[in-house]
Amino acid sequence: MRNFTCVHDIGNLKSALEKATYVKENPFADQQIGKNKTLLMIFFNSSLRTRLSTQKAGFNLGMNVIVLDINQGAWKLETERGVVMDGDKTEHILEAIPVMGSYCDIIGVRSFAQFKSKEDDYNEVILNQFIQYSGKPVISMEAATRHPLQSFADLITIEEYKKTPRPKVVLTWAPHPKPLPQAVANSFCEWMNATDYEFVITHPEGYELDEKFVGKARVEYDKEKAYKDADFIYAKNWSAYRDPNYGKVINMDKSWTVDARKMALTNNAYFMHCLPVRRNMIVTDEVIESPQSLVIPEAANRMVSAQTVLKEILKDNF
Amino acid sequence: MRNFTCVHDIGNLKSALEKATYVKENPFADQQIGKNKTLLMIFFNSSLRTRLSTQKAGFNLGMNVIVLDINQGAWKLETERGVVMDGDKTEHILEAIPVMGSYCDIIGVRSFAQFKSKEDDYNEVILNQFIQYSGKPVISMEAATRHPLQSFADLITIEEYKKTPRPKVVLTWAPHPKPLPQAVANSFCEWMNATDYEFVITHPEGYELDEKFVGKARVEYDKEKAYKDADFIYAKNWSAYRDPNYGKVINMDKSWTVDARKMALTNNAYFMHCLPVRRNMIVTDEVIESPQSLVIPEAANRMVSAQTVLKEILKDNF
Amino acid sequence: MRNFTCVHDIGNLKSALEKATYVKENPFADQQIGKNKTLLMIFFNSSLRTRLSTQKAGFNLGMNVIVLDINQGAWKLETERGVVMDGDKTEHILEAIPVMGSYCDIIGVRSFAQFKSKEDDYNEVILNQFIQYSGKPVISMEAATRHPLQSFADLITIEEYKKTPRPKVVLTWAPHPKPLPQAVANSFCEWMNATDYEFVITHPEGYELDEKFVGKARVEYDKEKAYKDADFIYAKNWSAYRDPNYGKVINMDKSWTVDARKMALTNNAYFMHCLPVRRNMIVTDEVIESPQSLVIPEAANRMVSAQTVLKEILKDNF
Repeated sequence: MRNFTCVHDIGNLKSALEKATYVKENPFADQQIGKNKTLLMIFFNSSLRTRLSTQKAGFNLGMNVIVLDINQGAWKLETERGVVMDGDKTEHILEAIPVMGSYCDIIGVRSFAQFKSKEDDYNEVILNQFIQYSGKPVISMEAATRHPLQSFADLITIEEYKKTPRPKVVLTWAPHPKPLPQAVANSFCEWMNATDYEFVITHPEGYELDEKFVGKARVEYDKEKAYKDADFIYAKNWSAYRDPNYGKVINMDKSWTVDARKMALTNNAYFMHCLPVRRNMIVTDEVIESPQSLVIPEAANRMVSAQTVLKEILKDNF
Repeated sequence: MRNFTCVHDIGNLKSALEKATYVKENPFADQQIGKNKTLLMIFFNSSLRTRLSTQKAGFNLGMNVIVLDINQGAWKLETERGVVMDGDKTEHILEAIPVMGSYCDIIGVRSFAQFKSKEDDYNEVILNQFIQYSGKPVISMEAATRHPLQSFADLITIEEYKKTPRPKVVLTWAPHPKPLPQAVANSFCEWMNATDYEFVITHPEGYELDEKFVGKARVEYDKEKAYKDADFIYAKNWSAYRDPNYGKVINMDKSWTVDARKMALTNNAYFMHCLPVRRNMIVTDEVIESPQSLVIPEAANRMVSAQTVLKEILKDNF
Repeated sequence: MRNFTCVHDIGNLKSALEKATYVKENPFADQQIGKNKTLLMIFFNSSLRTRLSTQKAGFNLGMNVIVLDINQGAWKLETERGVVMDGDKTEHILEAIPVMGSYCDIIGVRSFAQFKSKEDDYNEVILNQFIQYSGKPVISMEAATRHPLQSFADLITIEEYKKTPRPKVVLTWAPHPKPLPQAVANSFCEWMNATDYEFVITHPEGYELDEKFVGKARVEYDKEKAYKDADFIYAKNWSAYRDPNYGKVINMDKSWTVDARKMALTNNAYFMHCLPVRRNMIVTDEVIESPQSLVIPEAANRMVSAQTVLKEILKDNF
């Protein structure tokens, strides 16, 4: 594995899960692999879980870790050729990125969808510039359209808790007051579609995701039908993808909040969410505090997914 | 020791001081204890001494250290159940804190009194949430009502410089233009009351501290009487504790500035202050630059107190 | 070497270059030298290259590294004695600096010219306070009048690429929309004057540098003459040094932009710049993307210069 930006990078999922299990059981066993290797984590957007879990994963592997917070908007990079740079952009991406690459061995990048240009967002312009110009392996720490470290942790968690070989996993949209990217939802779809689970997506009309990510999943607009016999309910808000509403909140329908009434339709399903979660918008207190809630072990697995990915990249590139 | 939030956590003071002496003389002797252990330092308030000294203490013990700056107010956690989180609070404390706990082994928290609710401040609401929900040992890096790493460093310093077994130690209020928490003063009282020193508190009327912290100390409103024959003058400003003035500056009387005239009343006392100090408000240039000033070695002992505490917690919990 | 603030600190240049070559070829060979030593990097100004390269250099030597960002203006230190500190300055330099020194082994300081007082800038008031009061070796990570880690990296780069023992090196001013310090230019002059290269400075009238730094260099106002037969073109903007224009942009003459037409006058010269660089102000896309552009290897050598300096300071002081 050279870069880690989507499910396809991790290769065979069964093998990846076995590697994750090993890492989880032996967190400090591979410190020679990361010795004298430096992980540079670049945050264009703020972070709690990704920042802490990835930094700890690097430490566990014996790496040095440098964290670089780039205040969104404060560090403006020019990307075009031919521009006379007499404005607020102080550096061109063709210089900035190779220089950062020269001071580290692996680069992690967090750069959310900006909702200014759907095309730029869905072409992953910033992430791809790092891949193209840094000269080093690049890890997505949540990009514009995917959050693969989260999805890998989600998969690990489902594997740990599933009671049947092919569980029914339901991704449900849930209301939120602010426009959020589709990255977590897209990415979860991509990873679920790579398994043999029964995978269902449910959301109000108008919140259809990019078909590239929906893939073979069943889209069920009737949420009660979707919840029926589910083994895992994975909740997430996202803003509209389809034009002309890209990046907009088109409704905040509270009937989509995950609650005990709908959970009662399931096969005693586990509840999952990537966090941070707004209680009583996305999910009721009752459900998130129930024994079926996996949000804390799911977050803890972020360290496992990050460490597994870093380890494989270290093994394959150095 | 599980958590370190007050003098009672450190156990027997004589034994604690012996441990501190060992740490000071052998700073790098215990790196196996901290190997593969991660200290997460969370700052809700800015910090210079605590940040640097605690980070260095962690390094000395072979720990990995992660620093997380949380801009005061920027990260608003919901604490109530049942609230529909559709406002500016993006995460509930019941999720945020266990997640942080899952990525580290020891958590340090700095969270000052906010002067919005005396009850919340004196109940140490934030610090106690970390203790209750993180699942990990918690160290106060200055909380609303106490600053125990400072007080322990103060005690170490007094023990190093005292010329008599039971020195007379005087805590004197001194003027300051802004309303400061009572934490350093409270905490110093608590630690001095745990010794067999002669301990006197002096301040203007209206600046009485919480009786829980004053304890058996003698309160002397006549500052000249207080200074008389003192071996250590420990200066600190604090805002009013008593209602209706909680958190307010009720005077800035410069006659309380520590100066050579009052120091002449003492038994050639040492001068102490936790820093940062405003010169010619808290203390004159003359006194703080005199050979009797201990402010620099006192600050240097912050590393010793932090390392001793971290070491004991590592020994007792892992 | 105790401190590293200018070319004179590094001693014999030939020997320094040999040490740099060793470090570049054996980056991890000296980790015992830095074991249990802590580098404190203090940034009064923002930084990308210096921050990352110096941190990595410390890691390579086995050091612990603490980064302290001091928001410019947010941390105001009093420097005068006798002042009643009842305003916005919360700490005196006589306390703050020794305290920071007590928590580390080497201090790196970045503090740019402030253009408020030419005398203060050119007396390096802040850097010298750290040298005077910290009690620890101090490294300039760009001060008011010099940027010696950059200049050392520049020298290493020239030595790596030169095709003749005594290349012709030309420092050319180039336009920029904002007033920049003279530090990089001054420092480059100082280091070039310490070699036996042919060294020429070219700039528009009014941009004369301090004669102390110009030294024996030839100043050529006719840029075409300066470029003639050059082996290295080193571009940099600086604001005016001479009164009454100190710190001002007195013109932005685009005829000084480094372009292919002027580069054609040279001996197929290499192009150098310390970065960040504004394209089509300082240099055209064509020149900076040409095979003769050394900006990326030059930046990569920042790690080498920093590691060489840290290693020598560690060897000489501990």
